[in-house]
Amino acid sequence: MSIGIKIHGLATALWSFDRSLTGDGVRQTLKKLKEHVPDLRIKEIPTGAQVFDWKIPKEWSVKNAWIITPSGKKICDFKSNNLHLVGYSIPINRKISLLELQAHLHSLPDQPNAIPYITSYYKERWGFCLTQNERDSLVDGEYEVCIDSKLFDGSMTYGELIIPGASSREVFLSTYVCHPSMANNELSGPTVTTFIAKWLLSLNNRKYTYRIVFIPETIGSIAYISMNLHVLKNNVTAGFNVSCIGDERAYSYMPSRNGNTLSDKAAIHVLTHTDVNFISYEWKDRGSDERQYCAPLVDLPIAGILRSKWLAYEEYHTSLDDLETVVTPDGLEGGYGALKKALETIERHCYPVVTTLCEPQLGKRGLYPTLSDKNTKAEVRVMMDILTWSDGTKSLIEIADICGLPVWDLYSIVDNLVLHNLLILHNEQLLLNVN
Amino acid sequence: MSIGIKIHGLATALWSFDRSLTGDGVRQTLKKLKEHVPDLRIKEIPTGAQVFDWKIPKEWSVKNAWIITPSGKKICDFKSNNLHLVGYSIPINRKISLLELQAHLHSLPDQPNAIPYITSYYKERWGFCLTQNERDSLVDGEYEVCIDSKLFDGSMTYGELIIPGASSREVFLSTYVCHPSMANNELSGPTVTTFIAKWLLSLNNRKYTYRIVFIPETIGSIAYISMNLHVLKNNVTAGFNVSCIGDERAYSYMPSRNGNTLSDKAAIHVLTHTDVNFISYEWKDRGSDERQYCAPLVDLPIAGILRSKWLAYEEYHTSLDDLETVVTPDGLEGGYGALKKALETIERHCYPVVTTLCEPQLGKRGLYPTLSDKNTKAEVRVMMDILTWSDGTKSLIEIADICGLPVWDLYSIVDNLVLHNLLILHNEQLLLNVN
Amino acid sequence: MSIGIKIHGLATALWSFDRSLTGDGVRQTLKKLKEHVPDLRIKEIPTGAQVFDWKIPKEWSVKNAWIITPSGKKICDFKSNNLHLVGYSIPINRKISLLELQAHLHSLPDQPNAIPYITSYYKERWGFCLTQNERDSLVDGEYEVCIDSKLFDGSMTYGELIIPGASSREVFLSTYVCHPSMANNELSGPTVTTFIAKWLLSLNNRKYTYRIVFIPETIGSIAYISMNLHVLKNNVTAGFNVSCIGDERAYSYMPSRNGNTLSDKAAIHVLTHTDVNFISYEWKDRGSDERQYCAPLVDLPIAGILRSKWLAYEEYHTSLDDLETVVTPDGLEGGYGALKKALETIERHCYPVVTTLCEPQLGKRGLYPTLSDKNTKAEVRVMMDILTWSDGTKSLIEIADICGLPVWDLYSIVDNLVLHNLLILHNEQLLLNVN
Repeated sequence: MSIGIKIHGLATALWSFDRSLTGDGVRQTLKKLKEHVPDLRIKEIPTGAQVFDWKIPKEWSVKNAWIITPSGKKICDFKSNNLHLVGYSIPINRKISLLELQAHLHSLPDQPNAIPYITSYYKERWGFCLTQNERDSLVDGEYEVCIDSKLFDGSMTYGELIIPGASSREVFLSTYVCHPSMANNELSGPTVTTFIAKWLLSLNNRKYTYRIVFIPETIGSIAYISMNLHVLKNNVTAGFNVSCIGDERAYSYMPSRNGNTLSDKAAIHVLTHTDVNFISYEWKDRGSDERQYCAPLVDLPIAGILRSKWLAYEEYHTSLDDLETVVTPDGLEGGYGALKKALETIERHCYPVVTTLCEPQLGKRGLYPTLSDKNTKAEVRVMMDILTWSDGTKSLIEIADICGLPVWDLYSIVDNLVLHNLLILHNEQLLLNVN
Repeated sequence: MSIGIKIHGLATALWSFDRSLTGDGVRQTLKKLKEHVPDLRIKEIPTGAQVFDWKIPKEWSVKNAWIITPSGKKICDFKSNNLHLVGYSIPINRKISLLELQAHLHSLPDQPNAIPYITSYYKERWGFCLTQNERDSLVDGEYEVCIDSKLFDGSMTYGELIIPGASSREVFLSTYVCHPSMANNELSGPTVTTFIAKWLLSLNNRKYTYRIVFIPETIGSIAYISMNLHVLKNNVTAGFNVSCIGDERAYSYMPSRNGNTLSDKAAIHVLTHTDVNFISYEWKDRGSDERQYCAPLVDLPIAGILRSKWLAYEEYHTSLDDLETVVTPDGLEGGYGALKKALETIERHCYPVVTTLCEPQLGKRGLYPTLSDKNTKAEVRVMMDILTWSDGTKSLIEIADICGLPVWDLYSIVDNLVLHNLLILHNEQLLLNVN
Repeated sequence: MSIGIKIHGLATALWSFDRSLTGDGVRQTLKKLKEHVPDLRIKEIPTGAQVFDWKIPKEWSVKNAWIITPSGKKICDFKSNNLHLVGYSIPINRKISLLELQAHLHSLPDQPNAIPYITSYYKERWGFCLTQNERDSLVDGEYEVCIDSKLFDGSMTYGELIIPGASSREVFLSTYVCHPSMANNELSGPTVTTFIAKWLLSLNNRKYTYRIVFIPETIGSIAYISMNLHVLKNNVTAGFNVSCIGDERAYSYMPSRNGNTLSDKAAIHVLTHTDVNFISYEWKDRGSDERQYCAPLVDLPIAGILRSKWLAYEEYHTSLDDLETVVTPDGLEGGYGALKKALETIERHCYPVVTTLCEPQLGKRGLYPTLSDKNTKAEVRVMMDILTWSDGTKSLIEIADICGLPVWDLYSIVDNLVLHNLLILHNEQLLLNVN
């Protein structure tokens, strides 16, 4: 079974859980992920805890929510689609006129078949979301409105997975578990990330330690940064915010605020060699948790590798963002592959340095043709180019860029040169005095 | 009455004074300006004083100058137009042939109706300037030539106005009072600068101290720098040489030699948002006192905001550069407005820094919509963009450039964020360690 | 006699010597050059000496080499053209079939009239090179093959010429003496370099010491660097690898690996003003001894000024690379001229600094017109531009670039300003604090 089909299967299993900033839907989701990565730790932060400028909100739980029309038909049933209820709606149980009800309804005139995704986390409200078509069919009369929800001092739940490596230097991955039944934004993020974690766990050795978090958006990343600021600032070398990574349309790059971190370089390099038409966004296009990870003075080296970005596809934040037409096994597999290649690029990131002054004599090692003629083979040429740029000031990614090749085409040649003691791979850049 | 009409009125009042490097025409001009800015100090430097590589020249005074043609007609009468006399002409009173006279006449074959503006400050000469048409009408015969002038050990006059501000750091403005009856070059400079001074005096508070000088070109700026080198080098943060700022045609930017000072940045930013077709000159196009202020080792941060630059308009340095067709109230008002905006940009120059780690919770301060949907309003977006770039490494001008907005569109938002204690404005750039 | 004809004459005299990595052909060549530059020292390095990752090879000498065809015709006679024998062929004297012989023959199907140039320095082999046409005419039968060669412990020969200058700082030139009878690659290099040395010796004074070596390619430069690493790293300011500099087609620039050394700047400046269509190669196009001089950690500031580069002309490394149709007196004279101009640019390299604050009064020195009008002469303008950029941060080459002129057009103006004590020429860049 392809990896794409496996990831798609996990997304399908998670589809109907009632996720929000807080609540049992998040806990169910994390428990399901833990079946795949048993070391995942599920953590709680109590309501009211101060995290930088914010407070952890109340926990929200919903038993039932629906509307009965004057003709007795049940519509906007939360059990049939959790998008029908405005997130964090307060409880209500009343009979009201259509006029009064309309002020609490949300629909999209331009997408008459879509249920929009609406929340009101920080102001107490109630409301329902429905298709424009259904809304247009409502007639005057008395409507029974029921929201059996609860807002209470509970906690906010998130998952954290630490995969140790040779170094305490870390690669950081962050993804969301707060979105209800939508696919690209955002079942693609946690499902792809779970399979990336499984791949990392399968490796014989890892240079870096991997820190992976499954959190609610915004308040989750703010809380996580506030509780881990020093370790993140000290240890994180690179990382990605994983979101919108499951459809088949675009590949996209979301820069860090800095724009020039190792994560940015790896993302640009991988996407350049994955899809020449990938979309390169700017910081002004931000909208996901990079807003927190790259905030001024936080400034973690976190970039994004995406397929169709938030706001950049029409099904975004509606019931049309589904697992059939939008997110597919192929889409997920492509996103997974690009993210995996970027992490490999970071794992293999180094500054090669030659061990000989002047060119080494490759011929005596069987690495060079013994008969001179006008042609030198392409692979010998690449080997010579790697050697000539291995002065410790250029990273392997930069050398690959100079060669016009994906960095993964250089791995076996570099390994061979290291085997012949012709190359040493430094973790840090050397700064040489050149005439 | 519009500011343009007021400035034009002042220029009209100054029109006929016989300005040159030295002499009573300069004194009369400065006295008139002092009526507008009473704190203007009128200063004298004695003839012969050494200023760097130069000496202050003799003072020049003219009572009368004319030519009587063989037919008895008086031409080239200094009293009717002071451009008729070559600046710094020595006295003469003789009858001479047309042939001898011709060697002392100056006209412009390509502009037959224009009297050219000619001087000979540093070599003793005499001469007259007239239109080509008048010159062509001269017939053979005896000409009576009279120049009742005097060159004597006197002094060179200039004006200096210091407008104190909260800081001893200074903004410097320099303009000319040596040009006789011409409008764009150069009654526009001292008149616009006078009204800029009046505006500065009207402000309730000023961050910077303003140093404003009204001087003769070249020798004046050299003398002023030589007498004030240390205070200028230590205190001047930014400034402009004000010249050619009164016609309606171009807006122009003259860079400092450095090209990247705060003055340059403010000028480019203001002109970009004032006139997308503004002309951006290079240092090779210099020709005014920026030659001295930006000389090697002097290197003050002085740029220029101009309308039609010297040499770049056909009436330049002729009697055609007048207050009717070339310099207009609208032209002066536009130049005044651009210079004022640049000075405001400098006054508001700062490096904003956020006060919270991660994004602040704008909602609880009423600065953010409480209901999430697909759209965020433009003004909220600008506020978020200001916050995200406020890491202390970027100036407010740079942040405005990133937002694609004139910096003055950011002032009220920045003030509001400061009011909410979400932003601090630093005078100096912070240099942060970023991963 | 033009310099081009003289250089071409020297190349003709050297044509038939049997050059290779080692041997008497090299010694004869160097002796001939020593007639022109008597201070040339001819040096030997013994076989087996370790030079970095390499060993000096055995010495190779050839008395005779030929093939007798079944019909008794002598072909591939080394005495008629030394390209017929694969370089470093081991001795053989046998009768063999055509089939066996074919495995030892080299020809070029695409260039049927060309004898290719083939060597096998580091693997013992024997072989002959011939035209494809001649090869196609061979018939079955018994061939008598004779190579009367010797490989023995001897030495590798090279030449070194030190031309002292005022400073111990050095300019380095390196060229080849290992190529047998071919013209552009490579009798052009040693012959042009010899005449450059003669010109340097003719100068009354030299700022720099010149170190000039005539060596075999690759092993020669590796050996020379290994024996002189510290003096080269400490003293060499600039230099060129001189190769392929005799045909009339292209002018070409081969960068150093760094790409931004004084040698690069001088080469680019000279070629820009010599041939606007000159070819600017990149480091990936390297192929000559810049590979060693610019190797990582060696990193000498060595660039290349060439005409048609190795591999970039069809006669390259064949018998068609001759002194009639490829290399000409005009081609050699052009290459010589460009290299000479680049060395002059390096000799005159400096950072000019003005001696006055503000503009100097040029008029009192007779350097400026005394009557002001709208026009300033071009030469005065250039003088003013030189002065305004002489702040010690810009080299004379950069000032010439800003003026849009070849640097040699500035020499007399600069000399005149130095004569008037208005300019001082610094060897090192000044780093000034600018507001």
